[in-house]
Amino acid sequence: MNYLKPFDPAYCVEEERNCRRYTKYYEGVFAQGSGYLQIRGSYEEGLACADQGELYMRMPANVTIEKPRHPYSKWGVYVPGVTGIHPMLKEELVNLPYLLKLDVTADGEKLDMELPGIHNYRRCLDFRDGVLYRDFDWRTESGLVRCQYRRFLPRQLKRVVVQEFSFQVASGRCRLTIENGIDCKVTTNGYNHFKKVEESGEAGRRGCVVQTDNGDSIRMLSMLFDSQGKVLGPVVDSVLREGETLKLTKLSAVSTSRDLDAGYLEFDQMEALLAETINRGERVYLENKAQWARLWKRAGVSIVGDETAQKAVNFSIYHLLRSVNPDDSRVAVCAKGYSGEAYFGHFFWDTEVYLLPFYLYTNPELAKKLVEFRIQTLPGAMANAKAYGYPGARYPWESSVSGEEQCPNWQYADHEIHVTADVVHGIWHYYQAAGDMEFLKNALPVLKETARYWLARVCRRPGGAVTLDGVMGPDEYICLCNNNAYTNFMAARSLEITAWALELCGEAAEPGFIEDLRETAQGLMNSVDWSGVIPQCDHFEDYEEPDFETMWPDRSKPFGGQVSQEYNYRVKALKQADVLMLPYLFPERFSAEQIRQSYDFYYPYTTHDSSLSAIIHSILCVRLERDREAWELFQRALEIDLSEAKMGAAEGVHIANCGGIWQGVILGFAGMKWEYDCDQPTFYPRLPKHWKSLSFSVCMKGEFYRVSICGDQAHVIKVE
Amino acid sequence: MNYLKPFDPAYCVEEERNCRRYTKYYEGVFAQGSGYLQIRGSYEEGLACADQGELYMRMPANVTIEKPRHPYSKWGVYVPGVTGIHPMLKEELVNLPYLLKLDVTADGEKLDMELPGIHNYRRCLDFRDGVLYRDFDWRTESGLVRCQYRRFLPRQLKRVVVQEFSFQVASGRCRLTIENGIDCKVTTNGYNHFKKVEESGEAGRRGCVVQTDNGDSIRMLSMLFDSQGKVLGPVVDSVLREGETLKLTKLSAVSTSRDLDAGYLEFDQMEALLAETINRGERVYLENKAQWARLWKRAGVSIVGDETAQKAVNFSIYHLLRSVNPDDSRVAVCAKGYSGEAYFGHFFWDTEVYLLPFYLYTNPELAKKLVEFRIQTLPGAMANAKAYGYPGARYPWESSVSGEEQCPNWQYADHEIHVTADVVHGIWHYYQAAGDMEFLKNALPVLKETARYWLARVCRRPGGAVTLDGVMGPDEYICLCNNNAYTNFMAARSLEITAWALELCGEAAEPGFIEDLRETAQGLMNSVDWSGVIPQCDHFEDYEEPDFETMWPDRSKPFGGQVSQEYNYRVKALKQADVLMLPYLFPERFSAEQIRQSYDFYYPYTTHDSSLSAIIHSILCVRLERDREAWELFQRALEIDLSEAKMGAAEGVHIANCGGIWQGVILGFAGMKWEYDCDQPTFYPRLPKHWKSLSFSVCMKGEFYRVSICGDQAHVIKVE
Repeated sequence: MNYLKPFDPAYCVEEERNCRRYTKYYEGVFAQGSGYLQIRGSYEEGLACADQGELYMRMPANVTIEKPRHPYSKWGVYVPGVTGIHPMLKEELVNLPYLLKLDVTADGEKLDMELPGIHNYRRCLDFRDGVLYRDFDWRTESGLVRCQYRRFLPRQLKRVVVQEFSFQVASGRCRLTIENGIDCKVTTNGYNHFKKVEESGEAGRRGCVVQTDNGDSIRMLSMLFDSQGKVLGPVVDSVLREGETLKLTKLSAVSTSRDLDAGYLEFDQMEALLAETINRGERVYLENKAQWARLWKRAGVSIVGDETAQKAVNFSIYHLLRSVNPDDSRVAVCAKGYSGEAYFGHFFWDTEVYLLPFYLYTNPELAKKLVEFRIQTLPGAMANAKAYGYPGARYPWESSVSGEEQCPNWQYADHEIHVTADVVHGIWHYYQAAGDMEFLKNALPVLKETARYWLARVCRRPGGAVTLDGVMGPDEYICLCNNNAYTNFMAARSLEITAWALELCGEAAEPGFIEDLRETAQGLMNSVDWSGVIPQCDHFEDYEEPDFETMWPDRSKPFGGQVSQEYNYRVKALKQADVLMLPYLFPERFSAEQIRQSYDFYYPYTTHDSSLSAIIHSILCVRLERDREAWELFQRALEIDLSEAKMGAAEGVHIANCGGIWQGVILGFAGMKWEYDCDQPTFYPRLPKHWKSLSFSVCMKGEFYRVSICGDQAHVIKVE
Repeated sequence: MNYLKPFDPAYCVEEERNCRRYTKYYEGVFAQGSGYLQIRGSYEEGLACADQGELYMRMPANVTIEKPRHPYSKWGVYVPGVTGIHPMLKEELVNLPYLLKLDVTADGEKLDMELPGIHNYRRCLDFRDGVLYRDFDWRTESGLVRCQYRRFLPRQLKRVVVQEFSFQVASGRCRLTIENGIDCKVTTNGYNHFKKVEESGEAGRRGCVVQTDNGDSIRMLSMLFDSQGKVLGPVVDSVLREGETLKLTKLSAVSTSRDLDAGYLEFDQMEALLAETINRGERVYLENKAQWARLWKRAGVSIVGDETAQKAVNFSIYHLLRSVNPDDSRVAVCAKGYSGEAYFGHFFWDTEVYLLPFYLYTNPELAKKLVEFRIQTLPGAMANAKAYGYPGARYPWESSVSGEEQCPNWQYADHEIHVTADVVHGIWHYYQAAGDMEFLKNALPVLKETARYWLARVCRRPGGAVTLDGVMGPDEYICLCNNNAYTNFMAARSLEITAWALELCGEAAEPGFIEDLRETAQGLMNSVDWSGVIPQCDHFEDYEEPDFETMWPDRSKPFGGQVSQEYNYRVKALKQADVLMLPYLFPERFSAEQIRQSYDFYYPYTTHDSSLSAIIHSILCVRLERDREAWELFQRALEIDLSEAKMGAAEGVHIANCGGIWQGVILGFAGMKWEYDCDQPTFYPRLPKHWKSLSFSVCMKGEFYRVSICGDQAHVIKVE
């Protein structure tokens, strides 16, 4: 087995040296997933310097500017939907026992990537099949061992992890001891969510059952096999002479009490699954590769003339495909795409605005999971509305599995109510794409209940004005305001959508309900001045001019981390696009002049402290024919995760930005019109000068198209 | 010894039945203190139903509307300044081991106030000497025991607690076992602050040393004596026949590593102190009584014709006198006057605005402790300013001993910056009263550093306007606003005060500094429209009209507890007086018409959810000659603590309201002018109709006056 095949650099990320400074970054970048199961790209043996069982109390804070713990390494094994209750952070995704564990000792020395004897280190993740490789030479007391690791989560066997190891003694003679394990001493954000841990280890099996403080139960089984597929004990002890090679395969399986279809597997069922897997040999990999190939065929984007952009786009697509569970709409894609603990495995408005378009235009069945997730969590949204004293449904700013609010910071939880409108936008977007009337009927309760919420939440002023007060828009640096343009617009639109949907479905509603929706929508629109520069909110002009010169000395780091929140909240500094989200989502509703004016007004105040910001500005710049700026902002988005210098992915990839990058190419440079703005695929391309061509597939109204763009010409061919 | 002397009902609170529903309320009402040591009015034996060692994580929340734990009883033993670090609530006053503990068993049954055999129960606290009495009959298996308890903290022996017990068998024959103890299994707000606990118990002594997680160490010693003053073992076992009486005295002493003068006492020194105390016999009580009498002579208020008001005023004065430590300016008076754990033993703006006047006009030496406390904590205030990115000093919204910010809720900590101006107001008020130039010189660094903070904190707008943005005024229901009238006014005044003080002291300042102060002060005043109804803040008119009808069904409970914070923050609901604080503090600066207009505008929006609200409105109503309303609001203030039905004192008395009640009488009904508004005692009395007369003493510019008011006539006599 030779792992060291040459990789296509556009389809992989390589790590070329073992440096603890970058370990966490690559753990995020190298995350692997089968949709059902997700793991960070940590070393099998861990790092001696990085305790994974550290207990501490993480407080609610602004994660954008929080200093993360675990400087050198943070393991992560997640089954989306398996959660625990943190006393401060509410319901969070639980970091499960580390089933990748494999400890190796050579001549009495325990393997660690920080040993001085490690040389020729190289790691590589192949986007096309999701396989992670690690190669290195290990000079031990009495020999040189050539080590090769390979691991993947076969998509067709979503519960299984395959790890393959080869230890070849290149010179000398080595005594190798290899111990298989599952490490249960792990915490999530410093908290131990395991109420019960049972470890078992008879007859070569390493197993554990853990129960979270939220009542979920997880069973894991791990076994070692020799190159002939024979089961080995958990500890393998072997003396190798020069030229000899020890090859091992570790197979693990996970099952949880939340599992659908086959249900919660017993150890015996899991052992049978592993036996079947080992018997299938290389076919396991080949089937995985075939499944990935099917996904790439629909989602792939080809950029000729820009290897860096190509790689970043591929990186984004890989993580988007990895993150979604095609078989389960009880979960969506969390803010870190299940590649880290930041944001607690929660679902935000990113779901509808940043992620949904990628799935919708490449693989509507996957998109359907995300919108079904919101239908599924309607009871939680209704509980939220009730808790706040309203009828109807109020989607949470931070959702976990139930749909009940999980955001521990009141200013966001209470006021970022635009998410409730974003959910409706997502449902409508999906309906427009799929034309699926059955789905729309299923979604009607969401539309009606969110509308009931809005009707109660707005303020009807004496004189007839309808306002939406005490909100926070997408820009989280204005803490509380009235008539945020984005929120008013989206709420109005979601009321209009509800009216359309009720009419389309011929659904009866209370008398006057549809009229109420339309009048309220119109009232909300009337409370914002849409001429000229669109005001972000009432009295935006009253906020102080930010003194960026003095207060933001280090522009390579977020503004929000360099000033007090008190200062931040009283100046015009913007965390991200706010007003500008509107012309990005609804370009047909705004004139170029209007977009230009608002862009030029808000851009100087925008810090891009949020990873959601740069790509929106890039897309608008393409439309404004500001090519240099569009390109710079696109670059900025590419570097959010994929820059060793910035190490943005250390706490997990910014999956919304991955979706954003896809949009930057397809809705930005390729100039695709939104599904709800056209009847057939429509493109106004404006490629970066050095891009020779751009091609990709999109799905619209259930049909697939192949799009090839050269210069400003788009060729669109329907494919079957 | 007959404890059952008849008490003057105006000078005591009586509890007439043992009902667990009211236990916590009376624990607050019956709090006793020597200034140095403070204890809640709990039963010696505790309540079997009320575990005092319960551990839980108390989260930062709005304590006004939080549901407290410990439904039936909460012990409290505090030495002001002895603090611990809570992971959520920051530095807090620590509830120390319960040194009052005395367990009594009769015929095998443990004494508990909930036993069916308890009859003729009565408790009484005498305000004039701070002694708490408890009398009850206990029908045991084989007899009837007449039990009499008396306890006090002798003011002249600030570290000592005296408890006296008498058990008389009225019929039958009883076997009594009495065990002396100090209970270390106590928590503070559900948290265990004791890093180390050492209990000792040899030779009749019960002792303990505990160390808090903040490094403070506390030693306690407790001993039992018989009626001859002979030391008893910690357990007394005795069979009493009909008519026989067992009399015991329990003496305890406390010393801490923070102690001034005698320092941190060893057990032997404490034993000597107790021995000396027991030897002095009844003189200990008499000396205590004499000290209290001296305090009452200066502070007493006599109302003829209204026993209820007289009692409430006496209650307030008692707690104000009890709460202050005359020998230590390293602490002030905490929000609960050290009679409960709510507000964590923190010091707020109450210190200057609600408490200081009482001390200043009755006992300037005590007042000096409060203002010296602010001078003492200047380094903490400077650390706060720095942490927020400003020069100078920024006093904390919630102060503990260091002066560093201890408020765990950012909206208050970040934005209630008026406290920094209130501190300067307090310093100037003290200086005006005492004419003490030495003091003013000592306070100059506070004035200069707070001024430096204001100069940096204001915003100088293009066009020359000076604004104060992103603040929260006294009304905490408007979360964030610009140009809050109270804050602008107080900040401007504190800049003016600094300019005056620099000139008075002939202190050199940077060139242009004094001009800067005056121009900035003028600019801040110019940013508020002082004609007509004074606007609480910019765009106050934009807040929605609160729907009190629907949203506030139960007017007997706070509005804030019945709506979401989200709703609260976007409507015009006021927690307390905000604009109206200004005419209350500076009546000379506002015309009656102006006060009337603002009063009539804001009053309908005011929920009085804060205990600081009613009395201010009462005082303004007296000035507006709205006698019925003034009286109703005064009544409302009286009931905040002293109402069994409302049980407001359960978590501790509202000491600011105690100060407010004193002001309601002296600055409201008696119409006294503030020291800074007159050269000699000046009164414009407007007594409630049924008050036959009102008399009290005040101190002005170092002179004491006796004031007698009848109708609208005030007779002021200077006394030596």
